[in-house]
Amino acid sequence: MHPIFDHTKSREQFDRAARVIPSGVYGHLGPAEGCFIPVSAYPQFSEKAQGTYFWDIDGNRYIDYMCAYGPNILGYNDPDVDEAARRQREKGDCITAPSTAMIDFAELLVDTVACADWAFFAKNGNDVTSIAVRTARAYTHRKKLIFFKGYYHGISPWCQKLDNAGVLPEEVRNNLYLDWNDEQQLEQAFAENKGQIAAVISQPYMHGNFADNTFPKEGFWQKVRKLCDDNGTVLIIDDVRAGFRMDMKGSDHYFGFKADLICFCKALANGYNVSALCGQDFLKNAVSGLSVTGSYWLSAVPFAAGIACIEKMKKLNCPQLLIDKGQKLSAGLLEQAKKYGYDLHITGMPSLFYLRLADDPSLMLHQAWIAECQKRGVFFTNHHNHFINAALSDSDIAETVEIAGEAFAALREMGE
Amino acid sequence: MHPIFDHTKSREQFDRAARVIPSGVYGHLGPAEGCFIPVSAYPQFSEKAQGTYFWDIDGNRYIDYMCAYGPNILGYNDPDVDEAARRQREKGDCITAPSTAMIDFAELLVDTVACADWAFFAKNGNDVTSIAVRTARAYTHRKKLIFFKGYYHGISPWCQKLDNAGVLPEEVRNNLYLDWNDEQQLEQAFAENKGQIAAVISQPYMHGNFADNTFPKEGFWQKVRKLCDDNGTVLIIDDVRAGFRMDMKGSDHYFGFKADLICFCKALANGYNVSALCGQDFLKNAVSGLSVTGSYWLSAVPFAAGIACIEKMKKLNCPQLLIDKGQKLSAGLLEQAKKYGYDLHITGMPSLFYLRLADDPSLMLHQAWIAECQKRGVFFTNHHNHFINAALSDSDIAETVEIAGEAFAALREMGE
Repeated sequence: MHPIFDHTKSREQFDRAARVIPSGVYGHLGPAEGCFIPVSAYPQFSEKAQGTYFWDIDGNRYIDYMCAYGPNILGYNDPDVDEAARRQREKGDCITAPSTAMIDFAELLVDTVACADWAFFAKNGNDVTSIAVRTARAYTHRKKLIFFKGYYHGISPWCQKLDNAGVLPEEVRNNLYLDWNDEQQLEQAFAENKGQIAAVISQPYMHGNFADNTFPKEGFWQKVRKLCDDNGTVLIIDDVRAGFRMDMKGSDHYFGFKADLICFCKALANGYNVSALCGQDFLKNAVSGLSVTGSYWLSAVPFAAGIACIEKMKKLNCPQLLIDKGQKLSAGLLEQAKKYGYDLHITGMPSLFYLRLADDPSLMLHQAWIAECQKRGVFFTNHHNHFINAALSDSDIAETVEIAGEAFAALREMGE
Repeated sequence: MHPIFDHTKSREQFDRAARVIPSGVYGHLGPAEGCFIPVSAYPQFSEKAQGTYFWDIDGNRYIDYMCAYGPNILGYNDPDVDEAARRQREKGDCITAPSTAMIDFAELLVDTVACADWAFFAKNGNDVTSIAVRTARAYTHRKKLIFFKGYYHGISPWCQKLDNAGVLPEEVRNNLYLDWNDEQQLEQAFAENKGQIAAVISQPYMHGNFADNTFPKEGFWQKVRKLCDDNGTVLIIDDVRAGFRMDMKGSDHYFGFKADLICFCKALANGYNVSALCGQDFLKNAVSGLSVTGSYWLSAVPFAAGIACIEKMKKLNCPQLLIDKGQKLSAGLLEQAKKYGYDLHITGMPSLFYLRLADDPSLMLHQAWIAECQKRGVFFTNHHNHFINAALSDSDIAETVEIAGEAFAALREMGE
């Protein structure tokens, strides 16, 4: 039996944070998104990380299935990536003129990613999804965008919900929201907005929050691709979350089609701060014509880290490795659920698995189970997909499965 | 006499870059902004940097007055900042839960910056200017923004020019553009848009490009502050460029007023990738209510670097140190100009000086002089302010002045 974690120091530090930081802790661990995490059970601050683990400031160790919400793909503090970054840092990072490491990284992405004739670098996923949309608008001289309901493409106004604070109606007026996997709606949208649709933007499959993740229906992507071709519309794949956890050539390649633009960020450099927009030749001039830059966009250390990360991922055949690990984990979790009589649904790519305990539609049972896992050292989250990294070992998976079983047993004891 | 630099390798690498990167090199060094630099004279790729210098890939050393366009404030590879970053990196950087270094950094900013009751961290200057504007709109439930002509606040649509590629009219429709230092226009704008102006956003003084930089008239900021107060409008200071090169307490403090929100980025962590929005208590809840986050926003290494950077800047009294160095340099440059009979104008803060050779309104003479400086190892730029860093020594300044003189002599020889 695993001991139950104490989070006294995390709670104390959160109180301190809340005095000087809006929300105390923001993003996924913040109260605004707190639905993702069992607030009473999760640690708010980390002390250190190594491989597949992180330790909170109360000294508890977690087998981490969030991987910093994606960036950790090879394991925290990967020696090869860190060494490449260290060597570059000795020479310089953020300098008036960029390093040729930027060219090396662009060439490597062009060699690796199926649809990439070029690469353009920024810092956030949101930077590159926004540049992609602006590229499509500049190229087509059109305004409208097609989104699939359940999407997340960043924080800029164009991809926010109308009722989000500080977002203006005119900033989202050109958005069309369709149901994922609905070819008929898609055909209708193109017919009703003839010559007006600049871009379709989508994740490679529906890995939205609060719902089982859904793959494209047979032929769906081919239909989208054809409608885009027939209508002169740019097809943008947001691979920020799934990138390099499905296919080294891009998640469009996994599903057998070719994006016009593809956005990478999270798994690009194993935690070093860089994002990339890649795309086909016909859009290169449109990107060149945009007015976009940033103070740290040409920094050399993340380029060196990104090169080492991509090279190592290719050597390991990382997507398949993570899929295999995810399948092993999924099988173990399903076995424990069955043993304790719960209906656990696991959806999406095994390397990006989404969990849902279906016995209680209120979601409270699911949250209770996640909390029991958390308190014993498995960092799962509630209504967001998870991430696998290459440092996760068979014994980590075995321990996870054991803890998942203990968490189910605890639910039964609580009478749930 | 200083030898003339060769840039053969830079040119070769630029050709290589242009094949796989839109524009080849983007941002300030790219062709889109190439007006800032004498293209035929400048190096496009750096090999390494140290202190106040960087070396290009042809082996030429530059006394660098661009400081990576701002981030380099203590000198490249500052040992104290790098050591703090290294220690944090050993523990971890981009982890599922943030480090308490985030709280330490927020507390330090609250202690340092006059108007700061809290701090919120992101990655780019553009992130925090955009969050500031969204905060103002969320708090006031108003749409309109006042800008001063010549402004630069980032790359998001709300702050772009209407004719910029990919920007929609509806994204900039709520912008009012006024002349800097014109109190009457300001009064009129508030009168004509009663109850509609969410925010005034401005740099602390007009340090736009292609024009002599201009300080606020006596009483101008007090007038702006009063109009904002009287109309319930949020006053946002964009201190991304000038921050910590005028006043450790914020550039609003330098001019004797108090901003509601202030944006920092460039000099915050000596090149480590972080930006910060600070503000007054009454806006803290509005920030908490926004939907904003990013994959690397809670990374610990830049927080550790930022703490070390701010502490060292305070110890050095960095703004005054840089102002003194800038004054020494300016005096030397003016002396050389006079000696060779040129009318050199130096405007803005000495720590952020803007250069203009006024003898030829076509700007070509200015560009020719800058090119001659560049080719001898002084990295100036054409129509953008410059930056001083703390590692710039008296002998660097003396060498710069000497090269500036040789560049004037070269102009005379060319018959300019």
